[in-house]
Amino acid sequence: MENVRIIEVKQSIFADNNARANELRQELKQNKIFLLNLMSSPGAGKTTTLCQVIRILKDKLNIGVMEADIDSDVDAKKIAECGVKSIQLHTGGMCHLDADMTRQGLENLIDGNIDLAILENVGNLVCPAEFDTGAVKNVMILSVPEGDDKPLKYPLIFQVCDALIINKIDVLPYFDFDMEKVVENAHMRNPKLEIFPICAKTGEGIEDFCAWLSKQVEDWKKD
Amino acid sequence: MENVRIIEVKQSIFADNNARANELRQELKQNKIFLLNLMSSPGAGKTTTLCQVIRILKDKLNIGVMEADIDSDVDAKKIAECGVKSIQLHTGGMCHLDADMTRQGLENLIDGNIDLAILENVGNLVCPAEFDTGAVKNVMILSVPEGDDKPLKYPLIFQVCDALIINKIDVLPYFDFDMEKVVENAHMRNPKLEIFPICAKTGEGIEDFCAWLSKQVEDWKKD
Repeated sequence: MENVRIIEVKQSIFADNNARANELRQELKQNKIFLLNLMSSPGAGKTTTLCQVIRILKDKLNIGVMEADIDSDVDAKKIAECGVKSIQLHTGGMCHLDADMTRQGLENLIDGNIDLAILENVGNLVCPAEFDTGAVKNVMILSVPEGDDKPLKYPLIFQVCDALIINKIDVLPYFDFDMEKVVENAHMRNPKLEIFPICAKTGEGIEDFCAWLSKQVEDWKKD
Repeated sequence: MENVRIIEVKQSIFADNNARANELRQELKQNKIFLLNLMSSPGAGKTTTLCQVIRILKDKLNIGVMEADIDSDVDAKKIAECGVKSIQLHTGGMCHLDADMTRQGLENLIDGNIDLAILENVGNLVCPAEFDTGAVKNVMILSVPEGDDKPLKYPLIFQVCDALIINKIDVLPYFDFDMEKVVENAHMRNPKLEIFPICAKTGEGIEDFCAWLSKQVEDWKKD
């Protein structure tokens, strides 16, 4: 397999990340590109979930994926094997991506028709939530083994996200994880949060999330 | 149960965190207090592991625990129930603790004899690794559901730690987690890393980690 492209993204020199994020979003709007920012803890299943999403949506949408990591290119390789364009972003030790880092990634990702660009952010529940990347929608994954208390401990990420994917529901019998409690606590942080329980390994529940995502892409291109 | 004490720690005004961390370590040495910094992803099992460590060591050592979180006091309550002194540190949104924040916590924790002070850092594999807290030893937990590729993606935390606890080995049959590969990759990052596979829920393997930790505390008090 061809090696994936690795981009070393540099931290923004602009103080006002929010303004830069809004500019990027406006440009994406003009170019009818939908940008999704996907966040989670390390190992919650972002890449495996994306592989399932790509499987379902790749015949309908032109998809490109940016895999952000401190180091390695294992995720970008996995995504490339799913049959869509994929690049690896190295953050040089940074724990999150800001709007300008995202823009640098997009400039290397988009050299043709892209309907849906996906940023897989650095695995971290704290810092990525604090920086608007310019994405149209923010989605987070919480996996069952992480526990149902995460909305209590990491409020901001639940507040800034539009959808919460609860992954690894196949191992629910082996963990003390109260699905009702996590839904209640997540909605306490953000009453509008859409919640999708899935198993990325088997694909269970992924159709519902893809239906929601397709609808968001459609609405964004239409308005 | 009595409510736990919550301390709002403030980010350091000192630029040179390393110097402040070394000062703190020297004071701890003089006072014969061993400080352990425990790091991991959210939900890897830091608090449950600490409860097992406390169960084994509390009759031998005076233990005090600082639970750092963005929000909530669920962890400090759990630790207090194990029968040792416990305080909750709120970081005001910060993704890590530096040496001065740790000092503020210690000042509130230590009002008598403490042999072993433990800082449970914010759940995050990136930022806490970048800031010396003044701890004598750094330990990280990687849990089986997070996957065996973490040493490739998050190099620094494996480099700065003295010991790696691999938790949730009871669910190994349900996850694609190659123990040999993770040990090899972790040792590639840090050949001196001590590795302890455990199940914090059942206590399996915790004795070996406690033996290692007791030895470190003993050596620190002796020199």
